[in-house]
Amino acid sequence: MPEVITIEHKILKKNADIALENRARFDDAGVFVVGLVSSPGSGKTSLLERTLQLLQGRARCAVIEGDVQTDNDARRIAALGVPAVQIVTNGTCHLEARMVQEALPQVDLAGLDLLFVENVGNLVCPSSYELGEHVRVVLASTTEGEDKPLKYPAMFRKSQVLVMNKVDLLPYVPFDLAKARSYALQVNPELRVFETSCTTGQGLDAWADWLLAERQARR
Amino acid sequence: MPEVITIEHKILKKNADIALENRARFDDAGVFVVGLVSSPGSGKTSLLERTLQLLQGRARCAVIEGDVQTDNDARRIAALGVPAVQIVTNGTCHLEARMVQEALPQVDLAGLDLLFVENVGNLVCPSSYELGEHVRVVLASTTEGEDKPLKYPAMFRKSQVLVMNKVDLLPYVPFDLAKARSYALQVNPELRVFETSCTTGQGLDAWADWLLAERQARR
Repeated sequence: MPEVITIEHKILKKNADIALENRARFDDAGVFVVGLVSSPGSGKTSLLERTLQLLQGRARCAVIEGDVQTDNDARRIAALGVPAVQIVTNGTCHLEARMVQEALPQVDLAGLDLLFVENVGNLVCPSSYELGEHVRVVLASTTEGEDKPLKYPAMFRKSQVLVMNKVDLLPYVPFDLAKARSYALQVNPELRVFETSCTTGQGLDAWADWLLAERQARR
Repeated sequence: MPEVITIEHKILKKNADIALENRARFDDAGVFVVGLVSSPGSGKTSLLERTLQLLQGRARCAVIEGDVQTDNDARRIAALGVPAVQIVTNGTCHLEARMVQEALPQVDLAGLDLLFVENVGNLVCPSSYELGEHVRVVLASTTEGEDKPLKYPAMFRKSQVLVMNKVDLLPYVPFDLAKARSYALQVNPELRVFETSCTTGQGLDAWADWLLAERQARR
C-alpha cells in the first residue's frame, strides 16, 4: 500500500521537524529533557515518583504524562507537589512531538532544570516518534522475560539508557538478569544500564545522580 | 489529517472483511480459534505452553505466533511437539487478518480442534484488528498495576475473557486483585475472568476446562 507509506513518511518527517522545534525551546531554557518509554506496567510512573523524591531540593522538575486514557499518572505526580501535565491521546498509541508542543504552554520551562516526558505504555509505536527529548530511557522489568530487546529491537536501538526495573522480584521470577542485559547490549551496545527497584530503592541513587550529572554536563 | 483517517478506515474495513473470510474457514473446519493479546511480558507464551500441556490428548492444538522480530515464541511452542507458525511483522505493531490468512496454508485446519493466535505484545494497536478468532483473551499480570483496564480500555472492551496472570507474585507486589478485577469489569461487565499462575499452575485447570467446553459448545 504505497499511498499509506508515503503518508506515514510525511507524518514522521513533520514529527521530526516539530521535535527539533521542541528541542530548541528546551535548549533555550536550559532544561534537560528525559523521555521514558516501556511496556505498560514496567514501572515508569513509579520510577518517576521515586526519582522526583530523590531530586527534591536538588533540581527543579516537572512531568508531562502521556496516556491513552485517564489522568491517573499526572495525579500521582501532582500528589508529590511536582507540576504535571497530562496528555490524553484518546486512542493514539504513542505521543507525538506536536502533542508535547501543545502541552508546553502549561509548563514553566524557565523555572525548570529537568523535564520528564512519560510516553504511552507501548514497546513498539513510540520508537518512531521523537519528541525533542535529550535522552530516551527505556524501562524493562524482571517480570517480562529476557528476550524483550530482541523482540522489540527498535525501541532499544533508539534509546540511550536502559533501566532494568523490579530487581527486588528476582528471587521469585524465572529471569536471568545477565542474559537480559546481554540481549539489550547485543541490540544496542551503547546502552547505559541501571538496575533498579522502586520497592526497595536499590539503584535509584545512582540513577538520580546520573540525571543530575547529565543535566550539569549539558548546561 | 482527514486523508489519513479515510485511509485508516479503508484499511480497517478491508481487515474486517478478511477476518470474516478467516472465520468462515475456521467454522468450515470446526476449529475453535482463540486470540491472545496483552502487554509485552504478561505471559502469553507461558500461558500457551502450560495450556498446551494440559490439553495434550484432549484436543488437537496448533499455534500462530505474532512478533515484531524473532521466532523465539514459535520455537518455544514447537519444543512441546505442537505445530507452530511464526508471523514476523517486521516492525508492524499488531497482527492483521491478512497476515493470519497468509499463514493458514501452513496450518492443517482439518486436523485441529483448537487454534491459538498470539498477537504482538501491545495493549493498544491490536484492539482495532479482528483476525477472525472466536474469542479474544486479554492477559494482565499482577506486576503491571491495577489501572491498566482504565488506561487501555479498548483492548478490555473488545475482549471476552480476562486472564489475570502471575497471581503467585501477589505477596511480593503492591497489587490489589479485587481492585484490578473491578476496574476491568467497569470497562467491560461481560468479561469472564480467570486468575492464573504459570509458575504454580493455579487456575490453569479451570481455564483449560473452559476452553474445551467452549470448543464443544461451538461445534
